[in-house]
Amino acid sequence: MSKSETAERIVHVPLGERAYDILIGPGLIAKAGGEISTRIKGRRAAIVTDANVGALYLDGLMDSLQTDGIEAVSVTLPAGEKTKSFESLTEVCDVLLEARIERNDAVIALGGGVIGDLTGFAAGIVRRGVRFVQIPTSLLSQVDSSVGGKTGINTRHGKNLVGVFNQPDLVIADTDILNTLSEREFRAGYAEVAKYGLIDKPDFFEWLERNWQDVFAGGPARIEAIAQSCQAKADVVVADERENGRRALLNLGHTFGHALEAVTEYDSSRLVHGEGVSIGMVLAHRFSARLNLASPDLADRVERHLKAVGLPTRMSEIPGELAPTDALMAAIAQDKKVKGGKLTFILTRDLGQSFVADDVPVSEVHRFLEEMRVV
Amino acid sequence: MSKSETAERIVHVPLGERAYDILIGPGLIAKAGGEISTRIKGRRAAIVTDANVGALYLDGLMDSLQTDGIEAVSVTLPAGEKTKSFESLTEVCDVLLEARIERNDAVIALGGGVIGDLTGFAAGIVRRGVRFVQIPTSLLSQVDSSVGGKTGINTRHGKNLVGVFNQPDLVIADTDILNTLSEREFRAGYAEVAKYGLIDKPDFFEWLERNWQDVFAGGPARIEAIAQSCQAKADVVVADERENGRRALLNLGHTFGHALEAVTEYDSSRLVHGEGVSIGMVLAHRFSARLNLASPDLADRVERHLKAVGLPTRMSEIPGELAPTDALMAAIAQDKKVKGGKLTFILTRDLGQSFVADDVPVSEVHRFLEEMRVV
Repeated sequence: MSKSETAERIVHVPLGERAYDILIGPGLIAKAGGEISTRIKGRRAAIVTDANVGALYLDGLMDSLQTDGIEAVSVTLPAGEKTKSFESLTEVCDVLLEARIERNDAVIALGGGVIGDLTGFAAGIVRRGVRFVQIPTSLLSQVDSSVGGKTGINTRHGKNLVGVFNQPDLVIADTDILNTLSEREFRAGYAEVAKYGLIDKPDFFEWLERNWQDVFAGGPARIEAIAQSCQAKADVVVADERENGRRALLNLGHTFGHALEAVTEYDSSRLVHGEGVSIGMVLAHRFSARLNLASPDLADRVERHLKAVGLPTRMSEIPGELAPTDALMAAIAQDKKVKGGKLTFILTRDLGQSFVADDVPVSEVHRFLEEMRVV
Repeated sequence: MSKSETAERIVHVPLGERAYDILIGPGLIAKAGGEISTRIKGRRAAIVTDANVGALYLDGLMDSLQTDGIEAVSVTLPAGEKTKSFESLTEVCDVLLEARIERNDAVIALGGGVIGDLTGFAAGIVRRGVRFVQIPTSLLSQVDSSVGGKTGINTRHGKNLVGVFNQPDLVIADTDILNTLSEREFRAGYAEVAKYGLIDKPDFFEWLERNWQDVFAGGPARIEAIAQSCQAKADVVVADERENGRRALLNLGHTFGHALEAVTEYDSSRLVHGEGVSIGMVLAHRFSARLNLASPDLADRVERHLKAVGLPTRMSEIPGELAPTDALMAAIAQDKKVKGGKLTFILTRDLGQSFVADDVPVSEVHRFLEEMRVV
């Protein structure tokens, strides 16, 4: 008890009337009822989870809510990206209305990014907005999708093309849950952790270079890394909640990464999001060197670290045949961060000195990718 | 030309970075392209309309957009309340994405409340929000649903239970369009006009008592009445955008009115929304008298005016057999404006002196309705 309490960290996200806390620490699911009931007036809740996560943690969460006098229902959806659909959204809204969730009641997302994005969207539109609590259960969702308020679903035109900005009222990141993640899934989340260092926190990146093994092992270093990541993302989001400027920095590695995900058809046996981001970040640093913005040594250093933790860093590591460069370029052009037909990239000048570059010539990118795909 | 220009009115809704203008006047559809192109950066647009309105006004609007260099697509949905569904929402989102509508492009709702509510919702969630223009084509939507930013769809649990707050970027209320409305539809919209006087503008109600015939006839009095109504609603919305307090006053007549709509199963051959509001406003004034808050003469005066314009004012005027009082009470209890099981009503102390009354005893309401249904 005393151990968990001393280990717990709180990151406050100061977004005015949408301000909220991120609680980070071991064993937090068992305390969720207490944390929710002190922050949210309503005495009803609806939990949305997926089959994998629900099997492990739903009962514990229900117990905790009941202990603190919150009456809860739950809905369990299939695990996987396909759940981010209009069909699932309709289903979740129906469950929330059936359970008579009102404005001051809590909708709780218990799961990774898919469940968080879908549930946050539903909570943002049922009765034009009810309370929303996130309990992210993957490293990726703890350090990325649970901060920032982006919610949404996919359509046949692309990912996350329909959604709302909906800040949660509370995020509970139980770090014990991460012990049940596969190595690969943990590593993929770690790519986003490293990203925060590369965006604008060189000290954090250096700390990760020294301490990554402790982060993987669990314990205080892991909690520290998650707290630093949430704080880093929160700082960017607070500066630019609606993504008009600075928030674009969070896409470091993502333009290349999303394109790789698209051409591998989001087939997780070939590539998961964090792996695409890892390769994408190395590409962004190499491309910065190519444009004489940064040193090639910096790209080597970034690659060395990501490789050390076991992440892929090159396109040639992706299993199966990689789609032609033209297909990659088409995927980049379809990315929603294209404005008026011009390519926007996040590039860097030095470690932790990234910036938004508009007007990157398409031909340069094409030549660069053509070269990099074979190394 | 000079006549329309002098007749035109602009109501500004000062909602900070969500501020927008409502243009009110004759012949505005023909000028829509110019008005939109000066206010919205994007050069693409998608128009959402219904079969009835589209047949009359879609071509003219498309022409106007084209003249001002805006490339537009359109989607025409079935007319009627059933269109406010998840299915239509999915369809509209798909059309907007197919048309590559981006954040600075315009989604235009050309229609009444149904089209406005559905389209505003879609515009609020595609790419987490694109520009939104409303061209309301009924009196009801010009004075009510086009102001305030409430959007949404219906579910099997009730009306407007899923949606977002999404302020439009521009509202274009072409008063010529109202000439093609049926008398009944115009009258139903007029109930909401009168409501603004009864909420807190006694002078406006007195003006309506003297000038209602000119409002019905068209011309400057109609434009004046619409502008006053939009201004009145804007004032309330600006004071309370998210409906936490004062905005509840807009529900004057609506708790009873919604219940009557529900028990007549939204069958427009028996009762349309504005008619329910008319009866509901008279009931709210009579109930205020019953509770010794206001004089019975006031209720008589309100009823006299609504009767004069041809609106129903009593439950016994609704064609067909009225559901039992218990069913009315159940419908009232299901209304989303119930908080923690207590009944909230908008009551009044005098002409244009309405207020939010919490804790109205259920038994009083029941007895009152039991009595009023037979007069």
